[in-house]
Amino acid sequence: MASNHAELETQLREKEQASARQGDEVRALKAKFKEGLVTKGEVDAAVELLKNLKIEAAQFQKEYEAATGSGTREAFRQNVLNALERRLFFIPSFKIYGSVAGLYDYGPPGCGIKANVTQAWRQHFVLEEGMLEVECPAVTPAAVLKASGHVDRFVDYMVSDKATGECHRADHLLEAELERVIADAKTEAGSRREAQDLLARVGELGAEALGEALVKYDIRSPDTGNELSAPFAFNLMFKTQIGPRGDATGYLRPETAQGIFVNFRDLLYYAGSKLPFAAAQIGSSYRNEISPRSGLLRVREFTQAEIEHFVNPSDKRHPKFARVAEVSPLLYSRDLQLGEEKAAKRLALGEAVARGVIANETLAYFIGRTALFCERIGLDPERVRFRQHLQHEMAHYAEDCWDCEVECSYGWIECAGLADRSAYDLNAHAAAAKVDLTAYETFPEPRDVEELRIVPDKKKLGQLFRKDAAAVMQALEGLCEPTALALRDALARGEEGALKLGDGRSVALPPGSVDIEKLTV
Amino acid sequence: MASNHAELETQLREKEQASARQGDEVRALKAKFKEGLVTKGEVDAAVELLKNLKIEAAQFQKEYEAATGSGTREAFRQNVLNALERRLFFIPSFKIYGSVAGLYDYGPPGCGIKANVTQAWRQHFVLEEGMLEVECPAVTPAAVLKASGHVDRFVDYMVSDKATGECHRADHLLEAELERVIADAKTEAGSRREAQDLLARVGELGAEALGEALVKYDIRSPDTGNELSAPFAFNLMFKTQIGPRGDATGYLRPETAQGIFVNFRDLLYYAGSKLPFAAAQIGSSYRNEISPRSGLLRVREFTQAEIEHFVNPSDKRHPKFARVAEVSPLLYSRDLQLGEEKAAKRLALGEAVARGVIANETLAYFIGRTALFCERIGLDPERVRFRQHLQHEMAHYAEDCWDCEVECSYGWIECAGLADRSAYDLNAHAAAAKVDLTAYETFPEPRDVEELRIVPDKKKLGQLFRKDAAAVMQALEGLCEPTALALRDALARGEEGALKLGDGRSVALPPGSVDIEKLTV
Repeated sequence: MASNHAELETQLREKEQASARQGDEVRALKAKFKEGLVTKGEVDAAVELLKNLKIEAAQFQKEYEAATGSGTREAFRQNVLNALERRLFFIPSFKIYGSVAGLYDYGPPGCGIKANVTQAWRQHFVLEEGMLEVECPAVTPAAVLKASGHVDRFVDYMVSDKATGECHRADHLLEAELERVIADAKTEAGSRREAQDLLARVGELGAEALGEALVKYDIRSPDTGNELSAPFAFNLMFKTQIGPRGDATGYLRPETAQGIFVNFRDLLYYAGSKLPFAAAQIGSSYRNEISPRSGLLRVREFTQAEIEHFVNPSDKRHPKFARVAEVSPLLYSRDLQLGEEKAAKRLALGEAVARGVIANETLAYFIGRTALFCERIGLDPERVRFRQHLQHEMAHYAEDCWDCEVECSYGWIECAGLADRSAYDLNAHAAAAKVDLTAYETFPEPRDVEELRIVPDKKKLGQLFRKDAAAVMQALEGLCEPTALALRDALARGEEGALKLGDGRSVALPPGSVDIEKLTV
Repeated sequence: MASNHAELETQLREKEQASARQGDEVRALKAKFKEGLVTKGEVDAAVELLKNLKIEAAQFQKEYEAATGSGTREAFRQNVLNALERRLFFIPSFKIYGSVAGLYDYGPPGCGIKANVTQAWRQHFVLEEGMLEVECPAVTPAAVLKASGHVDRFVDYMVSDKATGECHRADHLLEAELERVIADAKTEAGSRREAQDLLARVGELGAEALGEALVKYDIRSPDTGNELSAPFAFNLMFKTQIGPRGDATGYLRPETAQGIFVNFRDLLYYAGSKLPFAAAQIGSSYRNEISPRSGLLRVREFTQAEIEHFVNPSDKRHPKFARVAEVSPLLYSRDLQLGEEKAAKRLALGEAVARGVIANETLAYFIGRTALFCERIGLDPERVRFRQHLQHEMAHYAEDCWDCEVECSYGWIECAGLADRSAYDLNAHAAAAKVDLTAYETFPEPRDVEELRIVPDKKKLGQLFRKDAAAVMQALEGLCEPTALALRDALARGEEGALKLGDGRSVALPPGSVDIEKLTV
């Protein structure tokens, strides 16, 4: 194989050289032609020959790439990365000190592109939509990120090499082994199916389940073959201290959205105390990845642009929806993902809402605006799709969720998430900071409205769930109306009702443990 | 006094009301005039009366402010701050959680202004001057900031209340007490002069000298009157851990410049391996202030824009200098600061260089460009001056240094620093990372050039200075030519030569401890 490669390479060089020599010949003839020493016909013939040689060399280049594999996605990516690094679009940070995994600089042309994209984003979203932009510090006191759930739940599971102490992501090791098992021709059909099932669920496994799987597949430390520790949770936030006393823990923000939520009250007032309004923030976010891989895709410090659109939960129409109703992005709905074809299809957003594919006009409006933004900054529309989260992928408080995915050399990669998150974050901050973060609507005349009232029997829940009782109570508070009514009906029939908790677990509530009513107030 | 205020306020309200009533009268007359019910003369008379009432009210307003003190700088600042906060130009960060000292958000109009200023900066400096922009992460490994000197020397001195543990900046407490002593009519002339001398040097005092001064003036904890601890150094960088192993200390960058220095080699190559070239970075910097005060002036996270212009040290002319030679900013030179008048004067930059007020064309060029930028973003040119550092304010490696100061309600405040720093930072990183960060110049034909050669006698210096020997060696390496030649001459005369170390101390070198020559190579 290697000698074959070498032979092909020699042939390629020969063809390139022949074409270069003919180029010299053409230049020489053109000079002589100016002095009247050769005819135009002689020049034209030489040019024709040069063209043919160039085509031949280009064709051979393709064959060469196909034969050597240098035309694959990986090789393509490596070539692009090399060119981008050589031309200083990016630079591995602190390179002269050996650089740090997951940290990259933008070099001069990278900065130029970033400035242009940032400006396009501000123009397309903030200015055209009249959004309220904010810019908050990255250093964030612990209380804020405790309330948002990041202190407790923003973790990856890690294992360490028992001899060297080196750390690895448990899910990455498991995935690699499962992929090996599935690809191995000697694997029996039953084992393969089992591995496939597990592979689909790796992202949902907790520390215990991951540990069992690592033992079952006898997974060891990749470079050394040493034994691994049991998986343990590692919080992905960079931790620091604010001020000199050492008692004020802070974190670098893992996302920009929380800065919007904590300012909700002021922003609502600024918006004239009227819904809907949107707020936006663009800036750096920080995630202390355990072992960053995937080059520029998964880094420890990156620019994030987030928008929170606050809407009356009982009226999710959007006044400008007509403007995007004809936009037809590639939609990869739940049905298409679970169906036979497994491919996204173009669908006009107006129709998508009418058919119930997308939950409401507001969500569809932002899908449309995001699709237009992707086009505006030059992405190929055939490589941009919106994939709906499957039911089990969504947080318990989310009502619908679509990822904007872009196809690149790593496959389809999530570049933006569009979610109807209900009022989860505002409720969490309101409870933790003990402030009212409710928006009130003034009607021209008094009206009767229906209100959902959820009254848990705290004593009963305490006895039943003990240390989980708080999580159960919190999940009940966050219930969206359809789920709450389904639960009410189940309990009314004397059945147990399922309730999904914040950490993904499900518990069964017996009749009488919670009182759910829809009242006219 | 209070009843007097109340009386004045009543009078002011009365005058405002009279003027408002006359306004109504004018509107009514104008309507009647349209219907032909009154003459133009009657309308004009009413308008004249209204004008006089308004002038009277405005004059009274001024008297009122003067009498109540609400027209002072402090009151003015408080009024502006209140308006800016009410209109969400800024928001104390994490307000619903009680906020954190020294952290502020930009609200919607603040973000708009910041985006415009940033764009103006990029246009004025980066694009018009063809600078190489970079954007580096804020999270920085310790090795980089160790080499730059920040790990060891980026400190403030802190004292803590022995009973409550509350922390204060030692220099701030001392300054407040000295100001009180100086202002106190009962202070004797000798003691006042002593306090004035000390006040001028507070910024230069180390832990020991600060501690002695605190004891001498019997300074106690401001709120409680408790005893204070001895001053100790507190590093102003936010510390964190990079990655999961806990052995990779990182800091949030305290300035953006180091990201430029560590990329010098790549940027020089990108610039065609030719000097001069400039690189720029704009982004967040972080300083964990001990007890932030002065509102928006001294904060813990802020945007910084830095430019490093790399120039051949033996040729500091600037090709575009003619374009700013006629620009005449307010210059507050060393001579003017030490002279009688103590006021900045306008001087054309061309003349300032010719007269040796500013050290060289390149430094003067950037002073001019900075003055033009200040004008471009709307600063009053009468409130912008460039103040030259006094000799003792400059770092030992700096050759000349000017601060761009803006006059605001806090007085003249440094907003930008323009320094000829020699190659100090590049030398430090080259030594720490063990890479060559030298730029070479290719001449059209071979030339003889003079080179300064400094060869320390390491053994002798080691015996003489022991643990300080490394610092002495480093200071010798960083000597600029005039200082080095003066030292050579002193040693040649058989005298001891003074050498300033990086930490500000001075040592005496005996003849024979270092060999300094100027050679033709």
